[in-house]
Amino acid sequence: MNEEKKELNMEIEQIAEQVPEYISERKYAELKDILIEMNPADIGDLMEELPHQSLPVVYRLLPKELAAEVFVYIDPDTQEQLIKTFSDSELKEVIDELYVDDTVDLIEEMPASVVKRILKHTDKDMREEINRILKYPKDSAGSVMTTEYVDLKKNLTVEDAFLRIRRTAVDKETIYTCYVTDENRKLIGLVTVKDLLLSDYSEKISDIMETNIIYVNTTDDQEYVANMFTKYDFSTIPVVDAEERLVGIVTFDDAMDVLLDETTEDIEKMAAISQTDNEKPYLKMSAFELWKKRIPWLLLLMISATFTGMIISSFEEALSSFVVLTSFIPMLMDTGGNTGSQSSVTIIRSISLGDIEFKNLPAVIWKEIRVAVLCGVTLAITNFAKLMIVDKLIFGNDQITASVAFVVCSTLVMTVLCAKVIGCTLPMLAKKIGFDPAVMASPFITTIVDAVSLVVYFRIATACLHIG
Amino acid sequence: MNEEKKELNMEIEQIAEQVPEYISERKYAELKDILIEMNPADIGDLMEELPHQSLPVVYRLLPKELAAEVFVYIDPDTQEQLIKTFSDSELKEVIDELYVDDTVDLIEEMPASVVKRILKHTDKDMREEINRILKYPKDSAGSVMTTEYVDLKKNLTVEDAFLRIRRTAVDKETIYTCYVTDENRKLIGLVTVKDLLLSDYSEKISDIMETNIIYVNTTDDQEYVANMFTKYDFSTIPVVDAEERLVGIVTFDDAMDVLLDETTEDIEKMAAISQTDNEKPYLKMSAFELWKKRIPWLLLLMISATFTGMIISSFEEALSSFVVLTSFIPMLMDTGGNTGSQSSVTIIRSISLGDIEFKNLPAVIWKEIRVAVLCGVTLAITNFAKLMIVDKLIFGNDQITASVAFVVCSTLVMTVLCAKVIGCTLPMLAKKIGFDPAVMASPFITTIVDAVSLVVYFRIATACLHIG
Repeated sequence: MNEEKKELNMEIEQIAEQVPEYISERKYAELKDILIEMNPADIGDLMEELPHQSLPVVYRLLPKELAAEVFVYIDPDTQEQLIKTFSDSELKEVIDELYVDDTVDLIEEMPASVVKRILKHTDKDMREEINRILKYPKDSAGSVMTTEYVDLKKNLTVEDAFLRIRRTAVDKETIYTCYVTDENRKLIGLVTVKDLLLSDYSEKISDIMETNIIYVNTTDDQEYVANMFTKYDFSTIPVVDAEERLVGIVTFDDAMDVLLDETTEDIEKMAAISQTDNEKPYLKMSAFELWKKRIPWLLLLMISATFTGMIISSFEEALSSFVVLTSFIPMLMDTGGNTGSQSSVTIIRSISLGDIEFKNLPAVIWKEIRVAVLCGVTLAITNFAKLMIVDKLIFGNDQITASVAFVVCSTLVMTVLCAKVIGCTLPMLAKKIGFDPAVMASPFITTIVDAVSLVVYFRIATACLHIG
Repeated sequence: MNEEKKELNMEIEQIAEQVPEYISERKYAELKDILIEMNPADIGDLMEELPHQSLPVVYRLLPKELAAEVFVYIDPDTQEQLIKTFSDSELKEVIDELYVDDTVDLIEEMPASVVKRILKHTDKDMREEINRILKYPKDSAGSVMTTEYVDLKKNLTVEDAFLRIRRTAVDKETIYTCYVTDENRKLIGLVTVKDLLLSDYSEKISDIMETNIIYVNTTDDQEYVANMFTKYDFSTIPVVDAEERLVGIVTFDDAMDVLLDETTEDIEKMAAISQTDNEKPYLKMSAFELWKKRIPWLLLLMISATFTGMIISSFEEALSSFVVLTSFIPMLMDTGGNTGSQSSVTIIRSISLGDIEFKNLPAVIWKEIRVAVLCGVTLAITNFAKLMIVDKLIFGNDQITASVAFVVCSTLVMTVLCAKVIGCTLPMLAKKIGFDPAVMASPFITTIVDAVSLVVYFRIATACLHIG
């Protein structure tokens, strides 16, 4: 780990250890001095390390504005603990300082009783905003947007615009991109504060605004929105409704969070882990919750693996006359699984980065075939040499003949070929028919490739070794 | 795929198809009108779809500033093609418009002859900047930073600050966070344009600046820097040298790119794919380049899998008296591999998100043991029921006795237990001793778990079935 990060964590842990002492000795002023020097995110980390009974004391030491910032960075469990200790007026103070999107996040995480208390302390306008955002489908642009942006009219001057920004900036999450709307709230342009700073005070917004705007719809998937950020390097993106009226903005920090969450989800799917409604950091999950995430695929894959067993049973005869053939099963299965997952994982990642589309399927298959031949031949030659030189010559294993080595090595080539073609095709087909390609990763591919490679193995063996 | 995204791509493809026509009919004005309505990133995509001979024509139609923006979005191959067609003055125009960090990226990608031409057309100051950034280690904060930020002095007034920002903004990648340095260039504070807009013109910078600054060092790893962005929601982060002097800033868009690249790297490592120096999108890689990325681990894992074969050979006697045992090998191996990789992938991701540290090892192992017992017992019960009811009763497979089912199911429980403990421990140990935990993922774990589960299987079988 990075030294500096370690130091930072160490410091937070050290402070966390000392906090109870400060509290019991009533050294509140000293503790406050330490806290206000810290970054809100770090205070958030600190709060999570503290015993529950110290939470309210520490939180009340924070100046109002800092307290609200810190609140956003602490995890839902701790938030809930804190809210329970809040008086009504304290709760109102916190809620007043939060941005709308953070309030929505909070409401989504809290149990009903807490939500009721929160809604009681929001004013009517805020409540309307919250309800509007809550109505958007989960994981949609509408559900991650904030409604606190700066909007301008096109016939304002730059000077007017600055006045408006100054007047409203305090409540806005970001002010650096301002959106221009017409009388029907339709989005018609954008200006950045940089544009404004570089223009004369007397210029009209309509003359300096950018009219070629990239925007998303409230119903667009959040992953699509996040990908827009990485493609266009935006710091905010406007969200419009079905009538092209501006209803909110998504900021880059929320997009980054989406990107991280979606990637974690993809990685988990690739490792045969199911998604549950309530995704928490590992250490916060109970063994039972982890079991729920892991058992569905394990059961399914265990059942499907029994087909592989049936293939082995049906070639029992071949196996009993050439027992040495059994000992190559793990190597063939593992190599098939590994080569298949290399292809599927590469393709899944390329799909999610937007590098590959369905129309590329022929090109992808052709490339994978060539890679498979290269890999298969390399592996086969290495294995043939190992069998004939190490196993037969050096260790004197008489069961290994040139024919057996030939059977194993030609199976290797065929297995690698099948594995790579299956590995690249299945995720692309899944995507095409609307499934998540990430599910078509290693474990699933491995099960199919296992069966295929065993059939190939026994067929080649039966033909070459004159069995049966 | 998202409908809108599809449309956007369709549009770009359609335009790409029409471009040669526009050119052959010399409809340059019409083509230019289409282009200037597009976003630079989309023009970049368009250029990659075009035949090489149309590139210079299209590029020359773009207004100077837009041309430079587009240049940043096209891939290195196309950039190289373009530069070869540039006259010296055209090259100079492009370089003059690029930000320093983009020029550095370009230099790192181009062959020596092109680099020479580029450096010839940069002025002395720029060349010094470039050389300074090039000297930082690969993947360090220094190598991804830009040196074009706004710096202020603490005794300026807000009005002075605005003047300075207006005067220098054109050349800066971002102006919204300004850094305050002392006479020795040491970083002493920061102010945002929002702070400036909310303050009186007569206020001193020293009175409104934030002095508690989070920064990174030039030598910090880029992944660490990117994680700072996701933790603190910064839009820029200052980079200081060993003497704490401000030397540059990293912007959120570069941090997002780093995050994506590092995640792809992790995912590839988890799928036994090696990293090469030159990482390109899948479709741009030759079969040979893909082979180079995939073959090292395949060879290593193939060789290690032969040990699993040796275990089978050494229990040949048991297998020949109970041939049915062989048919459960794939299911046991696959289940072991799947449960192991669920644990290892979860732990690897949690480490890279900073959710888990080495000190959590006992907690992690204890949690995995409980999950393993839950999963193992569920799988064993299901499997026992399947063996006794489906295989024995319904299909009348006589080889399956209660003892055989017991052997298989108790092996399952032991395998899951070993797989989960190995799967969670190895990545954390790897991290501790300075290796990349991502390498300890599925394929590696599978190979170890295979061997362990077979030994357990045969030992239990020998003991329970009175073999030998």
